[in-house]
Amino acid sequence: MATIEEILAVERIDNDIYRGGSFPSHLRRTFGGQVAGQALVSATRTVDPKYAVHSLHGYFLRPGKPDKPAVFLVDRIRDGRSFVTRRVTGVQDGEAIFSMSASFHITDDVGIEHQDEMPVAPDPDTLPDLSENVTGTQKTLFAEWNNFDIRIVDQAETKRARGIAAQQRVWFKYKHPLPDDHLLHVCTLAYMSDMTLLSSSAVIHHDVKTQNASLDHAMWFLRPFRTDEWLLYDQTSPSAGGGRSLTQGRIFDRRGRLVAAVTQEGLTRRGVPESAASIMRPVE
Amino acid sequence: MATIEEILAVERIDNDIYRGGSFPSHLRRTFGGQVAGQALVSATRTVDPKYAVHSLHGYFLRPGKPDKPAVFLVDRIRDGRSFVTRRVTGVQDGEAIFSMSASFHITDDVGIEHQDEMPVAPDPDTLPDLSENVTGTQKTLFAEWNNFDIRIVDQAETKRARGIAAQQRVWFKYKHPLPDDHLLHVCTLAYMSDMTLLSSSAVIHHDVKTQNASLDHAMWFLRPFRTDEWLLYDQTSPSAGGGRSLTQGRIFDRRGRLVAAVTQEGLTRRGVPESAASIMRPVE
Repeated sequence: MATIEEILAVERIDNDIYRGGSFPSHLRRTFGGQVAGQALVSATRTVDPKYAVHSLHGYFLRPGKPDKPAVFLVDRIRDGRSFVTRRVTGVQDGEAIFSMSASFHITDDVGIEHQDEMPVAPDPDTLPDLSENVTGTQKTLFAEWNNFDIRIVDQAETKRARGIAAQQRVWFKYKHPLPDDHLLHVCTLAYMSDMTLLSSSAVIHHDVKTQNASLDHAMWFLRPFRTDEWLLYDQTSPSAGGGRSLTQGRIFDRRGRLVAAVTQEGLTRRGVPESAASIMRPVE
Repeated sequence: MATIEEILAVERIDNDIYRGGSFPSHLRRTFGGQVAGQALVSATRTVDPKYAVHSLHGYFLRPGKPDKPAVFLVDRIRDGRSFVTRRVTGVQDGEAIFSMSASFHITDDVGIEHQDEMPVAPDPDTLPDLSENVTGTQKTLFAEWNNFDIRIVDQAETKRARGIAAQQRVWFKYKHPLPDDHLLHVCTLAYMSDMTLLSSSAVIHHDVKTQNASLDHAMWFLRPFRTDEWLLYDQTSPSAGGGRSLTQGRIFDRRGRLVAAVTQEGLTRRGVPESAASIMRPVE
């Protein structure tokens, strides 16, 4: 399996044009987190490092082909004094497969401060490693992610907040030590954040088989973090209907700091599942 | 004051080029909800009405000038069988002030169904009409919105969910009857959703004056609704720090149906407030 550093190492083709690598895969469609991660790396390459990425908003437009590289075209839509914005289009065979905007900010310490409390969850070391326990259709997907340690908190241990329809908690981290490069950790979390979020909508529908695919992906990077240390992904699904599910996640480090937030809508159509996690939208 | 129908009536300039009206205003920067609403109307004009908008993601890039119209350039990035995606750039004086993508779907009824429960809130008719009670810097802003009835639930009545840092509930609606045109209600809610959300981050910081501005705006339209009937906007702020605040909202109708969800990050810098609600980012 490719390392996350290999996956995120986009190649410069020309000014504002980058190409991501393609990696051996048994998936029929490229994992959305890979496309989002490569798009975010491409955007950051065009921004002065004194600006830190604080948010991204992307749409998955067409299924990616795992056996072909994607090209990322960066549009410098705004260079301000304290904010920079980039728009990135991911292309394969002349067609846009992903469209993303990302915003960069010189962080400003003169504002209000607060954060939600971290929910109580069992210690990750007491939970089974998911990659050793998956079966059937999930197996293909988790084989792609065998550089990540993913531990799902049992539903019986997830004390759902009052009025919340569906909730799932997941501990996750990259298995191998990564360098002290915050940008690498940010782009790695963009990759990881697409791994189990959409499945949070399914946890209360055991009897229903659905075909899942990420439609959009939005992320806010709130505080510094490391992806080679345990992070708790507290996921909820406020709504499902009309063939789609909305999911939201808050990512905490082990000290309880809220480091990122994610929102994703996905297709959750009845049908034969290709996997339990979110992958890019199917061919229509 | 202009009606919402006047505000949202964009003029066709050419294929995929629209122009919004400009309306008398005492604001120094265009209200973000107006720009988002006009951008969304422009996008929908290029999409077959059998596809319904289900989400939008926008970035406010530069302050809008209230005394000038904005031009909206629509890019038909994807026309699929069941999904259509549009990218819209809002321009004034040759500069991009807003960049938005929106996705449209032929709603598919074969999926899972669930939603969060509506929180308990006092009846809107028992609460004071905010426009009659605002003072100081807020007065200018609420004068812009005098076609809307906005009623904020007192913090003492807002039973904050466990671990949630900041929460605010608001009942709101358009004051006058609107036609049975779902698209008009959707674009009206895009306008309204930017009105009080960012202020939810300030409710636990009474002693701090901040200068607020919307940075981004994402919305998911979940179920049909009317904006001329009461809607409950349940707003939380999971995080504030580094000069920015993240805010999220769930919008319920009076029957308890979750009709929309919103996420917005905003600048919340210490400084002299221009208003209590979110308006487009200041000149840097």
